[in-house]
Amino acid sequence: MTYLINDASDFSAEAVRGLVAAHPEHVSAVHGGVVRATETPKGQPALVIGGGSGHYPAFAGWVGPGMGHGAPCGNIFASPSASQVYSVARNAENGGGVILGFGNYAGDVLHFGAAAEKLRAEGVDVRIVKVSDDVASNSEENHRDRRGIAGDLPVFKIAGAAIEAGADVAEAERVAYKANDATRSFGLAFDGCTLPGAEEPLFHVAENTMGVGLGIHGEPGVKDLPMGSASEVADLLVDGVLEEDPGIGSGRVAIILNGLGTVKYEELFVVYGRVAERLEAAGLTPVRPEVGEFVTSLDMAGLSLTVVHLDEELEQHWTAPVDTPAYRRGAVDGARSPRTTFFAPGEEEVPAAQEDAQRQAGRVQSVVELFARICAEQEEELGRIDAIAGDGDHGQGMVLGTRGAVEAGAVALERGAGARTVLVHAGTAWAESAGGTSGALWGAALTAAGRALSDERASDDAAKGQALLDAVDAVRRLGGAEVGDKTMIDAAVPFSGELRKGLDAGTPLAEAITAAAQVAQQAARDTADMTARLGRSRVLGDKSLGTPDPGAVSFSLLMQALGEHLAET
Amino acid sequence: MTYLINDASDFSAEAVRGLVAAHPEHVSAVHGGVVRATETPKGQPALVIGGGSGHYPAFAGWVGPGMGHGAPCGNIFASPSASQVYSVARNAENGGGVILGFGNYAGDVLHFGAAAEKLRAEGVDVRIVKVSDDVASNSEENHRDRRGIAGDLPVFKIAGAAIEAGADVAEAERVAYKANDATRSFGLAFDGCTLPGAEEPLFHVAENTMGVGLGIHGEPGVKDLPMGSASEVADLLVDGVLEEDPGIGSGRVAIILNGLGTVKYEELFVVYGRVAERLEAAGLTPVRPEVGEFVTSLDMAGLSLTVVHLDEELEQHWTAPVDTPAYRRGAVDGARSPRTTFFAPGEEEVPAAQEDAQRQAGRVQSVVELFARICAEQEEELGRIDAIAGDGDHGQGMVLGTRGAVEAGAVALERGAGARTVLVHAGTAWAESAGGTSGALWGAALTAAGRALSDERASDDAAKGQALLDAVDAVRRLGGAEVGDKTMIDAAVPFSGELRKGLDAGTPLAEAITAAAQVAQQAARDTADMTARLGRSRVLGDKSLGTPDPGAVSFSLLMQALGEHLAET
Repeated sequence: MTYLINDASDFSAEAVRGLVAAHPEHVSAVHGGVVRATETPKGQPALVIGGGSGHYPAFAGWVGPGMGHGAPCGNIFASPSASQVYSVARNAENGGGVILGFGNYAGDVLHFGAAAEKLRAEGVDVRIVKVSDDVASNSEENHRDRRGIAGDLPVFKIAGAAIEAGADVAEAERVAYKANDATRSFGLAFDGCTLPGAEEPLFHVAENTMGVGLGIHGEPGVKDLPMGSASEVADLLVDGVLEEDPGIGSGRVAIILNGLGTVKYEELFVVYGRVAERLEAAGLTPVRPEVGEFVTSLDMAGLSLTVVHLDEELEQHWTAPVDTPAYRRGAVDGARSPRTTFFAPGEEEVPAAQEDAQRQAGRVQSVVELFARICAEQEEELGRIDAIAGDGDHGQGMVLGTRGAVEAGAVALERGAGARTVLVHAGTAWAESAGGTSGALWGAALTAAGRALSDERASDDAAKGQALLDAVDAVRRLGGAEVGDKTMIDAAVPFSGELRKGLDAGTPLAEAITAAAQVAQQAARDTADMTARLGRSRVLGDKSLGTPDPGAVSFSLLMQALGEHLAET
Repeated sequence: MTYLINDASDFSAEAVRGLVAAHPEHVSAVHGGVVRATETPKGQPALVIGGGSGHYPAFAGWVGPGMGHGAPCGNIFASPSASQVYSVARNAENGGGVILGFGNYAGDVLHFGAAAEKLRAEGVDVRIVKVSDDVASNSEENHRDRRGIAGDLPVFKIAGAAIEAGADVAEAERVAYKANDATRSFGLAFDGCTLPGAEEPLFHVAENTMGVGLGIHGEPGVKDLPMGSASEVADLLVDGVLEEDPGIGSGRVAIILNGLGTVKYEELFVVYGRVAERLEAAGLTPVRPEVGEFVTSLDMAGLSLTVVHLDEELEQHWTAPVDTPAYRRGAVDGARSPRTTFFAPGEEEVPAAQEDAQRQAGRVQSVVELFARICAEQEEELGRIDAIAGDGDHGQGMVLGTRGAVEAGAVALERGAGARTVLVHAGTAWAESAGGTSGALWGAALTAAGRALSDERASDDAAKGQALLDAVDAVRRLGGAEVGDKTMIDAAVPFSGELRKGLDAGTPLAEAITAAAQVAQQAARDTADMTARLGRSRVLGDKSLGTPDPGAVSFSLLMQALGEHLAET
């Protein structure tokens, strides 16, 4: 039960305001989350860690010297939006690049990824670190595809300490992934949690039953077992985390026994007594173990055990001083002066553009407007297709996204922006306005396309063609889907291949795009048969038999319109 | 719900073992609880803080440099026994005296008080600090009689820092009470908690209702109100703590917003946002506020707000470094070497006694044996009287207590002890074996009596008479009852007055005791009419009409037997 609410829809934002009010010496509020309240040395990489709210101390409770530089804070159990991540990262970045760290969940992958695209478009060296410690969620070979749970604590602690010790962004990325690869967690739950304002828990575990491997948002576990004693639970957890040997053989381990919300401290210590015996029997020495609440899940009843196999480097960073609202150890060296200036969205300087570059920006904006018109026309049809296998909001999402993009592009244009800035702003607004997966993907596409163009002078056709290829690449990188998964990619990849062929052969741009769009349209239509051909779509299951993928359809529609538009103008 | 249990009766002890396994750098296990794992400077006062289990981080989570020196750990929601407190204090004491700190609850007052008697009998300078911050539990004039709740954190934090800064035991006591007098807490609960192994919660709060001022063990609150919003709850709490002005007018305040178990972090921060606004409006500046779980109550749903009005001295100690399992801030100065030797009960050295002192010890032991025989004879009758207004276990308690005292006295005697040591050991064993209130009081009586005697040589009759007077004083101090409350005191105080009169008049000891015992017997009989005379007993209500108090009866019986025994020998 969540008892204390003013307005459920504003709950997460109010919680962030309360955190900042309570810990002004550690954190300052910026758009989208918090950053350190103290100055960081120029050139130090910024560790930006985040995810949905409802998991405190993760993530905003870990911002401060020795650990995070900032934390974008999403709604309860929802990834922060790309623009939240971007805003926090922009505020945290201080000339040394950015590590974006988050637990490996689809929404976080998309939105942090989109923010990374935007930051890279601005020349920031961005590295992505996905924590993937939950052994219940995937096999050992696919360790980096596992879900992230309480392993967030040691991975971000270690990465933060490495940065404090002088690591550059590449080195910090290396250490963070080394920590992640050395980390295994395994959890159990006895009951679900209730979202603020909800009447019923998000999910249930049957009475006197343990959901073994159940995820912290209720994701499916491994099996259900009858409730065990504290020692039996300890044995299950230890067996779970020690089944795999990541090959760091020092015999020294960081240990976190993490309560999810209503399994309380004395219970955790009863379990830990047995865990300690088992570790000793396995020849492992716990180093500064932590028993308490670190990655919670509102009032969920459950716990997890995390083991990090340490070598000398990881141990040094695990035990190093840290000073954050919720995690403190020892004294971090050096006085920290309060930080006084912050970046707020909308304050970005618009780079100066020459007259011809501004004219090109106007043409880019007219393409965005064209996209918005087409999406408005096709809204109902796209919704109809989407409703067969999905939730029917694809048409609405495309309309909201393109509308936001038009507005942001117009503002940028008015401020004298070039094509690059207009597209980057339009892409950000698209992701922000549309929400969801397709919003994040189209936002990233426009941002990547913008990055291939110039703000200073008009780009030539080669650059414009490259912009389209880059846009498709961004979608592919971010979305993580493959051809044949029945997604937008099934149209975008053939489009990209055909476009590249045309450009290599010297075909004029408008013509090459039109030809590629025709290939894309056929591919989009083909997705209707894909379910039958594959037996079932790998992404959507077999519900979409005979219906084309709405993302592939809208992509091909917009590319066709783009080709025609360029041919006309 | 408490989920993780091996054996409910061993739950608290297992939790302590787990804590020590998890934090060997902070705490070491000793009989009855934990002490610091590191050496403390010779002559530094020891801050020994404790209470029942189920409140972690309070109290064992606060042992370490800058805060506690040791924590006796009782069972869930039950005071540690006097011998647990004694053992932990003996281990923590390092030549600078002891502060015994605990929340103001009857059981803790008795058992910590009895331990203090025993330590004082050994020459240790012991100060008692009762935390009494809960404004819902008593009026402002009676601030020091209030219950202790989350004010434990700042009071012990401040006392620990004062000691770290060099305070001696008297100075630390002064600072601790200054902090307690500057502290106000107010709480609310939405639902009860479930003891390990229990099927049902210990108590309930009606659905959609807030138990305003409800105690952390379910003690009666002020009123029930319909569930409020987070801001309304914040306003209630702020109004509650700011109603009184303890007269420290700096305008700077330590703030603790404490969750009891299942009110989680984001909710607490939402509430804190409003608390911060209200404090600002009241012209108060929060200094290092803490929002989280500090004094929990298993899985109870509730929260409390604590405000400590700071002057320069209190602020300095509140913000000083501290390094414990569950509470850390900054770096405590100086390297701490691991401690290697600990004291275990039964290892106390028995001071050397001369032959005549050993003979006297034998006579003391025969009095203890006499007490045991009388209690065995009277067990049934004492139980019968007690069952009318109480729970009927007074006879059994006296039998168990005297039996334990005989055994411990015999062991001490065999090791060559003098009268002082025999009585102190017998007293400790009485309290330990009997349990409950009368056990604690008789244990303290024997301990105080022993302290008036010598180990080295035989004491004279004046010393023996003083021993009896001291014993009654100890009961009076510890029990906190007054004449007329229908307790053992109603016999003990007239006994003491008559004995003193006789001794002052030069009456031989045996004769004076017998005369005093007759007065005590009449007084004990008079307690039967007390209920009728007073309308109702202040302690027992009106259930005991016409029945004498069993404690007064057993006291007078034993004193009469003592007088007769001394006259014979």
